[in-house]
Amino acid sequence: MQRTLVGELGGQVGKTVSISGWVDVRRDHGKLIFFDIRDRSGKVQAVCSGAILADAEKLRPEWVVTLEGIVNERPEKMRVDGQNGNIELAVAKIAVLAKAAELPFDLSADLNLDTYLDNLPLTLRTPLARGVFNIQATVVEAFRETLREQGFIEFQAPALVGADVEGGAASFAVDYYYGKKAFLATSPQLYKQIMVGTLERVFATPKVFRGEKHATTRHLSEYSSLDFEMGFIKDHIEVMAVIESVVRAMVGAVTSKHADFFTARGVQLPLVPEQPFPVMKLREAQKILGAGEEPDLEPEQERAICEWAKKEHGSDFIFITHYPVAKRPFYTYEDENNPGYTKSFDLLFRGLEITTGGQRIHEYDTLVAAAKAKGLDPDKFSFYLQAFKYGMPPHGGSATGLERFTARMLELPNVKEATLFPRDLNRIDILLHESDTVEE
Amino acid sequence: MQRTLVGELGGQVGKTVSISGWVDVRRDHGKLIFFDIRDRSGKVQAVCSGAILADAEKLRPEWVVTLEGIVNERPEKMRVDGQNGNIELAVAKIAVLAKAAELPFDLSADLNLDTYLDNLPLTLRTPLARGVFNIQATVVEAFRETLREQGFIEFQAPALVGADVEGGAASFAVDYYYGKKAFLATSPQLYKQIMVGTLERVFATPKVFRGEKHATTRHLSEYSSLDFEMGFIKDHIEVMAVIESVVRAMVGAVTSKHADFFTARGVQLPLVPEQPFPVMKLREAQKILGAGEEPDLEPEQERAICEWAKKEHGSDFIFITHYPVAKRPFYTYEDENNPGYTKSFDLLFRGLEITTGGQRIHEYDTLVAAAKAKGLDPDKFSFYLQAFKYGMPPHGGSATGLERFTARMLELPNVKEATLFPRDLNRIDILLHESDTVEE
Repeated sequence: MQRTLVGELGGQVGKTVSISGWVDVRRDHGKLIFFDIRDRSGKVQAVCSGAILADAEKLRPEWVVTLEGIVNERPEKMRVDGQNGNIELAVAKIAVLAKAAELPFDLSADLNLDTYLDNLPLTLRTPLARGVFNIQATVVEAFRETLREQGFIEFQAPALVGADVEGGAASFAVDYYYGKKAFLATSPQLYKQIMVGTLERVFATPKVFRGEKHATTRHLSEYSSLDFEMGFIKDHIEVMAVIESVVRAMVGAVTSKHADFFTARGVQLPLVPEQPFPVMKLREAQKILGAGEEPDLEPEQERAICEWAKKEHGSDFIFITHYPVAKRPFYTYEDENNPGYTKSFDLLFRGLEITTGGQRIHEYDTLVAAAKAKGLDPDKFSFYLQAFKYGMPPHGGSATGLERFTARMLELPNVKEATLFPRDLNRIDILLHESDTVEE
Repeated sequence: MQRTLVGELGGQVGKTVSISGWVDVRRDHGKLIFFDIRDRSGKVQAVCSGAILADAEKLRPEWVVTLEGIVNERPEKMRVDGQNGNIELAVAKIAVLAKAAELPFDLSADLNLDTYLDNLPLTLRTPLARGVFNIQATVVEAFRETLREQGFIEFQAPALVGADVEGGAASFAVDYYYGKKAFLATSPQLYKQIMVGTLERVFATPKVFRGEKHATTRHLSEYSSLDFEMGFIKDHIEVMAVIESVVRAMVGAVTSKHADFFTARGVQLPLVPEQPFPVMKLREAQKILGAGEEPDLEPEQERAICEWAKKEHGSDFIFITHYPVAKRPFYTYEDENNPGYTKSFDLLFRGLEITTGGQRIHEYDTLVAAAKAKGLDPDKFSFYLQAFKYGMPPHGGSATGLERFTARMLELPNVKEATLFPRDLNRIDILLHESDTVEE
C-alpha cells in the first residue's frame, strides 16, 4: 500500500491509509496503547486496541514502523491544538522496519551541550534540531535565489589552497602528495575576486576553515561562508545594498515558511526596518557607546550598539563602516575621503557580527604595494595577481557566516547549536581530548 | 550615467547609453578604431572616430572601460549574425577603469592544458570557459531544485572528519590542534545517512577529497559531489528513479538555457530517451561486451556499453546494477535474491561513470557484521552507528560527480576543463613539482 505522509492525513478522514515513521512517544493505557508517530512531515497519534495490542506492546520509542489503519476524527473532548490534533489513526496492521535500543536519556529533556553533541545521530531527531536545520536550508536557498535574481552566478570555490597567503586567520595544514603541504582555505576571497574578472557577479557557499585556538560560543573550526563578489561598483555602499537585499530575503523566506516554529519556541522573528538598515562609521559607534578609538568593537560593544539600533531604529541589524586600514586585509580599499580608513563594513545582527565586506583594491600596483605594506610576499599569490595584471573593474563583496546568522535568528546561545556537526579544538564528532577539554 | 548591459542594447537604438566592460578585441583602421566590448551579458562592437580617436588609440585588450555613446543600427552590409550583430555603439566618451598588461598569448588560440591552467585568472575569460561554468551553475541548481520539489532538504556536510573510516578511497590528513590528525572527507556518505534518521530526505553538494595518486583525464583531488539520500524506500530501483529525474532536469535546464552554446561549440545535447534509462546487471553488460566476469567494468568497457546504449536505446545514459559485494563499501545492501551481489548501481554517461548509488544496510547488527567482514573496526565509527542503534528506515541514495557530469555533457576531453581551479597531484593553482611532473 502506498505510503501517506502524516502531514497529509487531514484530508483522509474515513479512509484506510499506510503511514511510516518513528515511534516518537508511547503511552500504554492497558487496553489502549497510543503512539505518536513521527515522519518528516510531522506527527500523528495512532491508537491500538483489540487484536493489534499484542503487536503494539512490543514497540518502543524510535522503532521504525509502517502502520496501516483508518483515519478517524478524534472524539470532541480529546481534540488538541496543532497538527493533526483533531484526527488519529486506528491501527489495524503493524510492520516493524527496524528496532531501536533503549534510549540513553529522555530526548525531551534539556541536555547539556556535550551530551547533545556526543549523540547527534539521535539528538538531531528532536523538533528543535529538525526545525533549526530546516530553517538553515531555507536561509541558504534564499541567499542563492536573491543573488541569482540580481545576475550573480554560482561557482565552486576550492577548499585546498597552495599557501596560507592572506594573513590573519590561522589555517590548517594538509599532508599533500610527496611530502608537500597544502592548506585549507580560510575564505574563498581571492578566488571570488578572480571570478569577478570572468563572470562579474558571483557567489559561493563553501566550507571554510579556521584553526584559531578559541573555545567560545561563536567560533567554529569549520563553517559555511555565504560569499558574493560583484564588479563595476561605485563604492562599498552598493555592496551593502546587495547584502541588505539578501538579508531581507532570508528573513522573509524564513518568516513565510517557518513562523510557526518561532511562535512555538517563543522566539521573535528578526526586526527588519522599512527604512534601510542603520549605518554608521566605527568612530561614530564608539562615540555613541562612549568608547575609546580602538581598531574594532569588542563583543560587549557589538551587543550594546545592536541594542541602540533596535531602540532607535527598530532594527535588529546595523552596519558599521570605515574600519582602520591597519585592521583590514591587504586588499581592502582605502577611502580617499577618509585616509587611514577603509571602504569596508561589518553587519551586526542581535549583538553579533555576521557579515563582513567592502570594496576591494582593483588596481595592480596599488594591490601589490598594499600587500607589501602588510608584510606579505606578492610572489606567494602571483596566481591571484594575474587577474589584476590583466584588467579588473572596481569591485567588492561580502561574506556571511551561515551558522552565526542561523544562531542569532533563532536566539540559540551557542553557534554550535546552529551547526549540524560542529568541529572545534575539542571535537570532531567525538571529543578529541577527553581528559583535557579546553573550557568555553 | 546608469550602466546598460551590452545584452540589453538591442532596445536602445538611437539612445545615448553608458556601457562598461573589457576590451575584447581591438581593430585599428586608422581613421576608425573598432572594439569588441565584453561584459557578463555578451559583446557589442564600439566604433571610435573623430575627436575620440586620441583616447581610443591608447586602449588595449583586457583594459576595463566605461564607454558612452549612441546606439546605432549598423549599415545593412555590415550586419553579422549573432548577439548585437545589427547594432554598434558610436563612442563619444571613454573612461579607463583599469589598464591591463600586454597579454602573454593570444586568448583565442588553442592553449595546451598547462598553459590554460597556469593562467586561469586570464584564460577563464574566454567564451568557452565562461560558458562551461555558467552551465555548471545551471546543473547544480537543477539538481537542488529537483530534489526540493521531491521533499528533500539541503544540509551542510562536514569536510573535516575524525578518521579515515570508510575504507577504499585514499584520504588526506590534516594537522589539527595539539598534534592530532584529522582527515578530509572522501564523501558525505556517513553523514547523509545520519541525516536520513532526522530529516528522511536530504541532499548536499559538498567538496570531497581523494588522495589517489592517479594523473588521468578523469580524476581530481578535490571535486564537488552531488549527493542525496532518502528513507523509507523499497529498494535501489526507487533511488535510480530519483537520480534519473534529477539527470533529466539537469539536461532539461541546460537545454533550455544554454542550447546556443552547444550549437556554437558543435556539441550535441545529451540524448535522453522517452523511455526510462536502460538498465542491466553488471553480468549482463559483460555478456553483451563478450567480457569476463570481473568485479567492475574497465574504462574501455564503460565506453563500449555506452555506445551500445546509444545505438540500441537512443540514450546517452545507462544504469549498471548488481556489483559484487566484494567491490562495494561495507554499508551496501546485499540483494536477497542475488546472493553475493548488491542492490547498487552506477550511472554511465557518454562512456564515463558519473554516479554511484544504491540501497544501504539499515539494520544495526547487519551493518556491524558487514563492516567487520571488510576488516573495518566498528569502534572507529561508533558515532555513525548510533543512527542505526536507535532505529533507521530502509534507505538509499547516490552521489554524482559535478565536474565529470559537466565534462561529459560538454564533451570536454579532460575533467579539469570542467573544474574551475583543479587540484591534482601536480598542481594547486601553480605546478607543485615543476621539475618532476607526473605524466597523464
